[in-house]
Amino acid sequence: VTSDGGTRDVPTGRPARVPTPRPDDPRLARLSLNQWTTRRLGLPELVEACSLRGIPAVGLWREQVHEVGPARAAELVASAGLRVSSLCRAWGFSAPSGSAWTAAVDEARRAIDEAATLGAPVLAVVAGGLPPDDRDLAGARERVRDAIALLAPEAGAAGVRLGLEPLHPMYSADRSVVSTLDQALRMLEGIPVEQAGVVIDTFHVWWDPDIRAGIARASGAIVALQLADWITPLPPDPLLGRGMLGDGHIELDHLVRAVLDAGYRGDIEVEIFNQDVWDAPPHDVIDTVMRRYVEVIGHALS
Amino acid sequence: VTSDGGTRDVPTGRPARVPTPRPDDPRLARLSLNQWTTRRLGLPELVEACSLRGIPAVGLWREQVHEVGPARAAELVASAGLRVSSLCRAWGFSAPSGSAWTAAVDEARRAIDEAATLGAPVLAVVAGGLPPDDRDLAGARERVRDAIALLAPEAGAAGVRLGLEPLHPMYSADRSVVSTLDQALRMLEGIPVEQAGVVIDTFHVWWDPDIRAGIARASGAIVALQLADWITPLPPDPLLGRGMLGDGHIELDHLVRAVLDAGYRGDIEVEIFNQDVWDAPPHDVIDTVMRRYVEVIGHALS
Repeated sequence: VTSDGGTRDVPTGRPARVPTPRPDDPRLARLSLNQWTTRRLGLPELVEACSLRGIPAVGLWREQVHEVGPARAAELVASAGLRVSSLCRAWGFSAPSGSAWTAAVDEARRAIDEAATLGAPVLAVVAGGLPPDDRDLAGARERVRDAIALLAPEAGAAGVRLGLEPLHPMYSADRSVVSTLDQALRMLEGIPVEQAGVVIDTFHVWWDPDIRAGIARASGAIVALQLADWITPLPPDPLLGRGMLGDGHIELDHLVRAVLDAGYRGDIEVEIFNQDVWDAPPHDVIDTVMRRYVEVIGHALS
Repeated sequence: VTSDGGTRDVPTGRPARVPTPRPDDPRLARLSLNQWTTRRLGLPELVEACSLRGIPAVGLWREQVHEVGPARAAELVASAGLRVSSLCRAWGFSAPSGSAWTAAVDEARRAIDEAATLGAPVLAVVAGGLPPDDRDLAGARERVRDAIALLAPEAGAAGVRLGLEPLHPMYSADRSVVSTLDQALRMLEGIPVEQAGVVIDTFHVWWDPDIRAGIARASGAIVALQLADWITPLPPDPLLGRGMLGDGHIELDHLVRAVLDAGYRGDIEVEIFNQDVWDAPPHDVIDTVMRRYVEVIGHALS
């Protein structure tokens, strides 16, 4: 709030263009706040803030869930009247064959258990990058597929779906050898959609000339939808380029509409990694997220 | 050269693994040094350095050609016994319809003339990013296609081929709305390969799960091949992440082999934008380029 009483968005400091939605606003029915967007809040503060504002769901990260334990985290969320939209994440199936790959798979099994405890319908999966001194992308991709094929039935049996998330190609070397929606869908061929599907994150896929066709083809296999904008210039740390909705270059309303038209019925998570956002007061961040969510993708939601 | 007499590669400072090829080494027959790799050298110094070392071709940039004028630049290259492999570049066809788009097209016409004067077989084309406050990627891509369709016959008549270069998706917002080889090929459908084709740059396309299929499909439409490695971490300025061959994560030998197997017969340009490379003595950079070229892609060349 500024000295003239006007509300301002963070982190830009520009005047808000819409009022902050009230807790009973029906447009909030599918909004989920990813925990990392307001990383300075502990889980109790996060769920309280969401509950007060009428945000019905949260996306959680394993590291922060571990701080209180999965059972206590589940209690905190449920007692605030919220639900968990997804758990981040299983990771690193591109590891070299042998003990490193087995360790990644075993860690993913623990993550599946935690997702089940939390009642999270989806465990996000990030493939991992190339091992050191290894340039064999095709081989790394095969190991990712093998891990998912192995784990998917176990996830399904636990009531959790694996959500393979293609990451932006600027992370292909060091974070994810799975870079496009089409590639992720091909990796999942033959695996029932009740066990595994794809996570669509606007920041990672917006540039893809084939994204509309891929979304239509994905249809029932879309298990989660995450939102962030693409801002320029990229910050020095390319992990922190995720912008507040509406601050960047992505036609977010069209992308969200395409995902909803493809039959996606789940929550819509706002997940922003951005130093300016993290430096802003967390409650201002949440209020801005709510305003931008209805301002930027409101038409797609209606 | 180190105090013990051993040769060291730049910018890593590691001992060279192979001897510097001699000027009559047949493996150098298709090597081209892009001018920007040793940007501190003027054109006279560049062509002298290449001529002495048996590098038969150079890739030029318009800005530096303008410093001496295209006719004089052509003379300098020819009198050193070299050829021009490509001219960089026409740019910005994603500009808004109207005067901005027309200006980009007119500037490209001047670039075509310069390429013809230089005897460059290829004028590289970089699409341009989204106009300010414009999120319509599809519209921007249509304007790029329109410009190429208009200019391609003019280029062909001048004996120059337009080379549409897909840029890495991390540049989609601000530099190139053309991001993949497949997309570039689709944009060129219906245009004779004598007039326009694609530039394949390893840095931009290496991550693409469909790159092998795209290269095979491109075949006679590949008009230039540029090499740089992908190094991590990305530097703070994402434009300067292009690494010395062999310093990064790309399976360069396989990619080059695929392009040659697809029938590409032109020069192979080494184009590195990297502050550490630019800070190194230019003659050490050229020697390292020669060694790494034969070390890293020598098998593909034979």
